[in-house]
Amino acid sequence: MDNQQLVTLLSELTIDEKIGQLVQLSGDFFQEDEAMLVGPQKKLGINEAMIELVGSVLNVTGAEKVRQIQDNYLAKSRHKIPLMFMADIIYGYQTVYPIPLGQAASWNPELIEEGYQKIALESVAGGAHVTYAPMVDLVKDPRWGRCLESTGEDVYLNSRYAEAMVRGFQHNFDQGQGLASCVKHFAAYGAAEGGRDYNHVDMSERRLRQEYLPAYQAAVNAGSKLVMTSFNTVEGVPATGNKWLMHDVLREEWGFDGVVISDYAAVQELVTHGYAENNKEATYLAMAASNDIDMKTACYANHLAELIAEGRISMEQLDQAVWRVLCLKNDLGLFEDPYRGVSLEGENKGVFTSENRQMARNIASESMVLLKNENQVLPLKPEQKVALIGPYGDSQELMGLWAVHGRMEDVTTIKEAMSKHSPSVSYEQGCDMLEDYTFLGEFGYSQKIISGVELSPEEKEATKDGAIKLASESDVIVMALGEHTLQSGEAGSRTSLRLPLKQQELLKELAELRKPLVLLTISGRPLVLTEEVALVDGLIQAWFPGTEGGNALADILYGKINPSGRLTQSFPFNEGQIPVYYNNYSTGRPENESQHSGRFVSKYLDAPNQPLFPFGYGLSYHESSYSALQVDSETLSAENPLTVTVTVTNLAGLAGQEVVQLYVRDLYASIVQPVKLLKGFQKIQLEAGESREVSFEISEEMLRFYQQDGQFASEVGDFDIFIGRNSQDCQKIRVRLVA
Amino acid sequence: MDNQQLVTLLSELTIDEKIGQLVQLSGDFFQEDEAMLVGPQKKLGINEAMIELVGSVLNVTGAEKVRQIQDNYLAKSRHKIPLMFMADIIYGYQTVYPIPLGQAASWNPELIEEGYQKIALESVAGGAHVTYAPMVDLVKDPRWGRCLESTGEDVYLNSRYAEAMVRGFQHNFDQGQGLASCVKHFAAYGAAEGGRDYNHVDMSERRLRQEYLPAYQAAVNAGSKLVMTSFNTVEGVPATGNKWLMHDVLREEWGFDGVVISDYAAVQELVTHGYAENNKEATYLAMAASNDIDMKTACYANHLAELIAEGRISMEQLDQAVWRVLCLKNDLGLFEDPYRGVSLEGENKGVFTSENRQMARNIASESMVLLKNENQVLPLKPEQKVALIGPYGDSQELMGLWAVHGRMEDVTTIKEAMSKHSPSVSYEQGCDMLEDYTFLGEFGYSQKIISGVELSPEEKEATKDGAIKLASESDVIVMALGEHTLQSGEAGSRTSLRLPLKQQELLKELAELRKPLVLLTISGRPLVLTEEVALVDGLIQAWFPGTEGGNALADILYGKINPSGRLTQSFPFNEGQIPVYYNNYSTGRPENESQHSGRFVSKYLDAPNQPLFPFGYGLSYHESSYSALQVDSETLSAENPLTVTVTVTNLAGLAGQEVVQLYVRDLYASIVQPVKLLKGFQKIQLEAGESREVSFEISEEMLRFYQQDGQFASEVGDFDIFIGRNSQDCQKIRVRLVA
Repeated sequence: MDNQQLVTLLSELTIDEKIGQLVQLSGDFFQEDEAMLVGPQKKLGINEAMIELVGSVLNVTGAEKVRQIQDNYLAKSRHKIPLMFMADIIYGYQTVYPIPLGQAASWNPELIEEGYQKIALESVAGGAHVTYAPMVDLVKDPRWGRCLESTGEDVYLNSRYAEAMVRGFQHNFDQGQGLASCVKHFAAYGAAEGGRDYNHVDMSERRLRQEYLPAYQAAVNAGSKLVMTSFNTVEGVPATGNKWLMHDVLREEWGFDGVVISDYAAVQELVTHGYAENNKEATYLAMAASNDIDMKTACYANHLAELIAEGRISMEQLDQAVWRVLCLKNDLGLFEDPYRGVSLEGENKGVFTSENRQMARNIASESMVLLKNENQVLPLKPEQKVALIGPYGDSQELMGLWAVHGRMEDVTTIKEAMSKHSPSVSYEQGCDMLEDYTFLGEFGYSQKIISGVELSPEEKEATKDGAIKLASESDVIVMALGEHTLQSGEAGSRTSLRLPLKQQELLKELAELRKPLVLLTISGRPLVLTEEVALVDGLIQAWFPGTEGGNALADILYGKINPSGRLTQSFPFNEGQIPVYYNNYSTGRPENESQHSGRFVSKYLDAPNQPLFPFGYGLSYHESSYSALQVDSETLSAENPLTVTVTVTNLAGLAGQEVVQLYVRDLYASIVQPVKLLKGFQKIQLEAGESREVSFEISEEMLRFYQQDGQFASEVGDFDIFIGRNSQDCQKIRVRLVA
Repeated sequence: MDNQQLVTLLSELTIDEKIGQLVQLSGDFFQEDEAMLVGPQKKLGINEAMIELVGSVLNVTGAEKVRQIQDNYLAKSRHKIPLMFMADIIYGYQTVYPIPLGQAASWNPELIEEGYQKIALESVAGGAHVTYAPMVDLVKDPRWGRCLESTGEDVYLNSRYAEAMVRGFQHNFDQGQGLASCVKHFAAYGAAEGGRDYNHVDMSERRLRQEYLPAYQAAVNAGSKLVMTSFNTVEGVPATGNKWLMHDVLREEWGFDGVVISDYAAVQELVTHGYAENNKEATYLAMAASNDIDMKTACYANHLAELIAEGRISMEQLDQAVWRVLCLKNDLGLFEDPYRGVSLEGENKGVFTSENRQMARNIASESMVLLKNENQVLPLKPEQKVALIGPYGDSQELMGLWAVHGRMEDVTTIKEAMSKHSPSVSYEQGCDMLEDYTFLGEFGYSQKIISGVELSPEEKEATKDGAIKLASESDVIVMALGEHTLQSGEAGSRTSLRLPLKQQELLKELAELRKPLVLLTISGRPLVLTEEVALVDGLIQAWFPGTEGGNALADILYGKINPSGRLTQSFPFNEGQIPVYYNNYSTGRPENESQHSGRFVSKYLDAPNQPLFPFGYGLSYHESSYSALQVDSETLSAENPLTVTVTVTNLAGLAGQEVVQLYVRDLYASIVQPVKLLKGFQKIQLEAGESREVSFEISEEMLRFYQQDGQFASEVGDFDIFIGRNSQDCQKIRVRLVA
């Protein structure tokens, strides 16, 4: 449809038809049997007349179902404006990749971009138009369950992933392909106080702009078609009703002209939040803040017309919002083909393809982080007798909480995958997943991902005995432990980040056998593994690794793949140390540098300031050296950047990858700066024994920060440039920025 | 000296003499033997010529020493401007009160004010002129060791205590009596991230103004003569160099014209902080920010003259700072009597008087918080055979870290005090204080408060056996446990808030005897006592209760005093729940009120949102009821406040005190508000069976908050008014604010 046709269409809509475009309901409102409607309608309290005017639907997928709903809808529609189908396609459609926190550990945005192209193709074949992704919320608190969906604690890295993911989803979008991406949750949702989901967020505007906003802006600049609001307050106001955030920053400063959609029920929650007096005021405040689509509440449907009649919301405001929705539908090509070519045949061919599974396997391989490897316990040798023990050893629950469209039966288990490498792998569960399953009962979302079946007391005893026997007869013990799927993800906030108690106990018991012991941890977040690390020889952080995660893990265990993953969120030493992250701000009494000896420095009495494993950390099967750090000039200026170079050498007899990391510290500034900030990285392949020079350009632009007056600018002075293999293990060189 | 004389004096000073007035050094620079000077001088790097021009000295006390130093100093002084003696007199001089967090639990600012008058009289007799107190830093994080010196988590209560403490110290100051108070640490020092002392602070300006600044402002409005800067950043800039904070807010907005002094070495730490390039720039930035006195660094002494010569600091700026110092000396009457009448005889008569000890005992009595009392385990009966067990049972270490002038030998131990009530008290230490004393070795401040003497293995075994035997032969077990003095206070940050491990183990062992068991906890902060509470019948939080703390505790144990203390900082359920405080902000998905059932609410999966013991909580030996909550009008306006009334009844046969607490919730506002905010309280005495109506006026002023545009104003709408015995146990009534 050309622009003029779209303008004409908008002009022909009644107010109610316009409002309908701004309302999104779930699939239960689109049942064929209209009698089924009463339930959800009652629950939502939506004005019945609005239901068939609704412009988009959430979380309905499947070629057949989508076609059918679209058909029914269009049959009743006066203007034949197609429904738009949006869905939670977070880290895979039917082929499920590792969780984003795992993807991030690849330090390979190019690979992720390519992978997201494939997610988009699958999802489109399944009938989706828009995905509620990527989530680019920066997170420093592993108590927050949703770090599962984040790429970690660093603003630079998150921004690179945000761009890559948007570009991947929207690949060839202008040619009618791909998914429209909806970056979320705008803004700072990952900073919920205490790591408690949906809790309020408070920080200085400077910190917001310096650390939290850039990844959203990167996604917007990469062309994300939509933005989703967050549940939390920003500057004291819930994001969904936050005019400063949505209008002033997003639309005016950043020039975003796409669709803003509220997160699930967030418009109505403005009332619960104590921001709006009632649903009508919530509608007013959300519209005034420039929120276009009301997801899953009756607020817009029931109150917007009245606000327009009263002149509190102008027809121009309404038209702007509807225009953005119509443009998106037009960009998706829905007016030309409301089905976007979706068919059962295409779906069958397009989802869970071998190509996509290979991509899932590649990403999973690069996501795994080798955290410890002593006594050359890894890689395993095919002839070794392996006791594989733990509730994740032969489980298909490797997809994590938000793989809504993944099928458990498609998952290859660790045991199955390891058995392809060696005939000498035996398995025993060893213990229950959890000591207490009672909280699972509260979960009403997607029953299929609950498999927390409790063992009987007899089964518990038998499997524990079996595990000990198996372990004692083995050459090496591999334990597959981790948190339960339902302990992480949305609303999966935990105050204790330990492995479930029974798993800890089993690990301690098996450690007493003094056999070579490798731990594989499955989790949606950094766990506290301080005690475990001391007991094991090898440790691989495997995340929820997705459909092909078992295969990827087995490849690494048996050395077919040399691990290259590096953490993007610090693993805490204990819970009392949270938040712990690499780029903390300078203090006047630093632990190591201060003239104040002894007590009066910024430290804990009973734990280190540093995490157990820092940002950027991860081992490989090869050793490497970083040497000959040098700059081509000791000064730089706005016109003249400088180049810093290091020589990286693979000291081993096997090829491997290095993630060469560049950090900067501004030694004095009018705003106190972090002790280290990631400013670049290169993931390079080194053949056995190969040595390579790696260079980074240091530009004045990289040294800018938000000043007291809100300007983003650098200041002349001294800077330390760090290059190394992680945020702690770096070499440094001092340079000076001159005017 | 009259104003004109002071003006003349200032005009006669050389630049160096002026600068000298802005420099403060410690006592080691005022040794009689000049050869002794080399050490500190070298360490500090101070320009030798400046030393005898220095205007004030820190932490030298004692009538004789002060007179002597003053004599020596004046003998060499051209203008005979007396030295000013400042000292850490935080919660007592020689008579030591409970730590401020304990004082706060009295909910009795009048008593505290009276108590601080006595501290002032004692300190003045000991030669002090200025005290570095009160500390009014609001704190929500018990990991921060310095909550010991705070009055807790609430802005309203902290402000009342700030006023009381300043008024107490400066009682009859204009008549030449009292101590000059120095409110600290300006600002927001208690919000150090992660509870790690000296760590950076970040929050919105709105939160800073709403929660953190009011207590400092209350102290300033109450007439505090000085303000001390804090170590942390505020809005990205270290407080000591923060012109916005010190000049714009403190001097311009609040009209403070007294002396600003940097905290210990904080001027030089501007360099370490990454804010100033070097000491000269640090000097410039601190002076430009309106910091008058440089405590314990050579920055001003070595660099200020140069900055004035260069014109970067004007003579006017210098004169203003010096003027404020001279005014303070004049206000102290030092020009008339540089000794302020101090004499050895006066000191002997004035310190540690029976009157002061009685005050210490009264405050300690009101500070103790009865947290549990089941099976009427308390009060004890004199005829009961009591096994008093634990490292604090017969220890004189009851003063806490910052009782610099207290004498351990003056402290009555718990055992001694209990023995006055009953002949049937037997004592056994039972276990070592700590399992690991190694960190004590780092402490170089005041050796006299270290008594962490480790028991030999044989002694450990013997005392443990002895404790079990004693306990098993007793009618009731009283355990006196707690954290070590050095585990709390400044730089006493802990990631684990449990009792020391050996103490926990002993408690568990004795609990197995199934005897009535009372726990007394000595600590400088809220500890995590979740496991212990379940094991004991009675629990008294005794803080570090000071010189007379043992006596006060015994009075309560034996029912001579009916406990009335109420917590002013939440006691967390576990460390992973931190920060936990009563006045958290509303969310869109509250745990109990949301329409979202089950998982998707703001909560933890593995711990409650609520603390173990909430703000305002505490029991007494009497029971009470709160009934007939009513308002005299359902609406209020700026002109017409309303009155809310509740009937409080003492249901028991003994007299007692009730802390009737008033909270307010703003149900919807343009800035999301806390779920409850303390707005008033009354501590009342009720005779046995007595019933009394307690009324509070609710005014529009009480309902104001900081708006988006920075205005402090209320908004019409609905409010819930809560009255109750603590922040959780309240009755509520709804009212409406109208225009």
